[in-house]
Amino acid sequence: MFEKILIANRGEIALRILRAAKELGIATVAVHSTADADAMHVRLADESVCIGPPAARDSYLNIPALVAACEITGADAVHPGYGFLSENAGFAEVLADHNIAFIGPKAEHIRIMGDKIEAKRTARRLGIPCVPGSEGGITDEAEALRVGDEIGYPVLVKAASGGGGRGMKVARTREDLADALAVARQEAKAAFGDDAVYLEKYLEKPRHIEVQVMGDGRGKAVHLGERDCSLQRRHQKVWEEGPSPALGQADREKIGSIVANAMAELKYLGAGTVEFLWENGEFYFIEMNTRIQVEHPVTEMITGIDLVNEQIRVAAGEELSFSQSDVRLRGHAIECRINAEHPVTFRPSPGVISYYHPPGGLGVRVDSAIYQGYRIPPNYDSLLGKLIVHGRTRDECLMRLRRALDEIVVGGVDTTLPLFRTLVRNHDIQAGAYDIHWLEHFLLDGGMDDAQF
Amino acid sequence: MFEKILIANRGEIALRILRAAKELGIATVAVHSTADADAMHVRLADESVCIGPPAARDSYLNIPALVAACEITGADAVHPGYGFLSENAGFAEVLADHNIAFIGPKAEHIRIMGDKIEAKRTARRLGIPCVPGSEGGITDEAEALRVGDEIGYPVLVKAASGGGGRGMKVARTREDLADALAVARQEAKAAFGDDAVYLEKYLEKPRHIEVQVMGDGRGKAVHLGERDCSLQRRHQKVWEEGPSPALGQADREKIGSIVANAMAELKYLGAGTVEFLWENGEFYFIEMNTRIQVEHPVTEMITGIDLVNEQIRVAAGEELSFSQSDVRLRGHAIECRINAEHPVTFRPSPGVISYYHPPGGLGVRVDSAIYQGYRIPPNYDSLLGKLIVHGRTRDECLMRLRRALDEIVVGGVDTTLPLFRTLVRNHDIQAGAYDIHWLEHFLLDGGMDDAQF
Repeated sequence: MFEKILIANRGEIALRILRAAKELGIATVAVHSTADADAMHVRLADESVCIGPPAARDSYLNIPALVAACEITGADAVHPGYGFLSENAGFAEVLADHNIAFIGPKAEHIRIMGDKIEAKRTARRLGIPCVPGSEGGITDEAEALRVGDEIGYPVLVKAASGGGGRGMKVARTREDLADALAVARQEAKAAFGDDAVYLEKYLEKPRHIEVQVMGDGRGKAVHLGERDCSLQRRHQKVWEEGPSPALGQADREKIGSIVANAMAELKYLGAGTVEFLWENGEFYFIEMNTRIQVEHPVTEMITGIDLVNEQIRVAAGEELSFSQSDVRLRGHAIECRINAEHPVTFRPSPGVISYYHPPGGLGVRVDSAIYQGYRIPPNYDSLLGKLIVHGRTRDECLMRLRRALDEIVVGGVDTTLPLFRTLVRNHDIQAGAYDIHWLEHFLLDGGMDDAQF
Repeated sequence: MFEKILIANRGEIALRILRAAKELGIATVAVHSTADADAMHVRLADESVCIGPPAARDSYLNIPALVAACEITGADAVHPGYGFLSENAGFAEVLADHNIAFIGPKAEHIRIMGDKIEAKRTARRLGIPCVPGSEGGITDEAEALRVGDEIGYPVLVKAASGGGGRGMKVARTREDLADALAVARQEAKAAFGDDAVYLEKYLEKPRHIEVQVMGDGRGKAVHLGERDCSLQRRHQKVWEEGPSPALGQADREKIGSIVANAMAELKYLGAGTVEFLWENGEFYFIEMNTRIQVEHPVTEMITGIDLVNEQIRVAAGEELSFSQSDVRLRGHAIECRINAEHPVTFRPSPGVISYYHPPGGLGVRVDSAIYQGYRIPPNYDSLLGKLIVHGRTRDECLMRLRRALDEIVVGGVDTTLPLFRTLVRNHDIQAGAYDIHWLEHFLLDGGMDDAQF
């Protein structure tokens, strides 16, 4: 097992990793920018090293400074957390060159999954369901109709060289396709100088459902159920829960097995998340995240398994502490991301935490990096912490979340707490009836306008 | 279901009850003495009523004031918590006279279990194992030898009219019995004017193991495993855990069934704890507590069942939300009682909490009534809160507890936290090798003298 882990991150995830290391009896090194000298992760680590000025590129993304910090402190492993260098294959390789373990997947898998096209190709090869569509570019109407008939309507026509929504049209029926094709090709030609387009199944109201996996790097991989992260604002997850209110046990086991088998075949190492859009009972691969995710506690709460502990174990060459048959989902968990942002405008709100009182009691977990008197630096993302609540049923979980949200006090800065206090009382949320567009519509429709905060 | 619950208590248990009520969607009324006007339970309840001056007999034990508070606020039920009026059958009856529900057992059961002799007689009648001994007083040596042979040595000879250790002798072997009998009778005669003594099996190094039960009052009762509360100082529990490191699954199920069957036969209502001494695989009934206990979270953490929620349900005439087959013990939990006391002298340390930062992360629960800036009144017991930690195994739980204890900060007053930081690192504790005398011996032997705090 490792003797000393350097945590190449900050904020709540740095604390999260520190906790896992301490529970394994491993010494910890915190790194920090000059803006984070008073941060919790620095206070709680056994040692700390300042790695640069506030700008992330000069500190948390500064590979030479991180390698030097390992060498100074004698750290034999690095946990990258999420964000920053967590999906940087080059960083993993540089560490390997210095005989320092990277607590994460093999560099080749980070690289494959970091390339959207390569990731999709790999997923398809491994039997993971992808969005059906034409393999390559289409310029011919008859071929488009043939593909459209095959994948079913509505169909999305997308410029092959495109991006940013240009050259993108939805054909709701077979009759619409010829027009959509013509317009998309025209726009594509005008925008990219190439009128090749491709066809893809169009999902109208999908949910975002992701499967958590863990692999030992030697061909053993297990899945740990799914998280439903459909509640998003500007592609940022806001509220995550598991199990998904939309999935049945058969669907869960089926997609779980597909993902676990695929990861076993890859000889995937460590924690990973395979993300899907889900509609009408079908899963469509979006991407794979080759790291621990912000919302991993949802899975921990329903399985009892410490995912960061397992990441460390397998990175050190040990076996996972559990097998597939040990993974029994129990109850329901919901995570709320508490950001220092105005709950209506979402404008970041750095400043000093003048008062902090977290909630307690059965089924309530807080993963945060704040303390009373803490000054939130303006240099990084606005995530202060996460409130994760567990109940035996989704209804119990919702009532407990409501109670916990009424208890928590974060003073001195705006936070997203009022948004969650509104969401937990919303009928659609209570019914689990939401898709990836729900939250944006709710906010646009003034759902938060009358909120009391 | 009730519409409004008055919480006839203070401190962490008042908060605990408040949380359960909120999760059931029931309005809450806090009561408080003038010393507790700024307490957390007052801040978090929907309404609050001042019921008297600091002295508990004039406030938290003031039945007329509590009934008046119910009538003023329209509360239709009272939860008494633990201590104060929780085991006062008269209080339950007064409430009933005012058409207010008492969230606790039937008055007759409170009364039976409140009387040590009646409690033992009832336990024996219901098939609960008791300490074997002579039924009545013994004055005759031959009879003493007969009883001694029957129950086995060592044997405790106790004055029938006795108390405070006078007229009490241990006979380690059959040969010692005649002498012990003579000395005990002499002492008893001198002290109480009555030389009748009785014999009881003497337990040398027992553990304190208690079984949690819940009854619906109509003949359905379930057990929820045991808690091991052997770590005590002056008969005060300090550290509680479950499952007991000493019990096997067969023992657990056997004693659990005995207790559940007994409570079913009694038509017991609500939460109760049947306490035993345990030695060499045998259970010996001590007493039954007809209330929720301080250490109930241990059971909640390993079953996922909210015991206070269930108390409220059954008091309102509903069914328990679970049956015996739903009770599956998962993992291990340990609770540490955080008292405002010096960790070596145990001298109470009231004052202002100058800094408070609870620990977070997976498997960590805090039930506390403190906040930063809170002034601890000197009028009540010194319990500030409880840290309860869960792990998949006892070892995992211990490592997590150690980590959580290193995170928690309570500033401004002395607390028992350094004691727990020492205990969690102790070999006997780690091995689960302790009995009810262990902690006293550890403290007497200077176990805390070198502690860093």
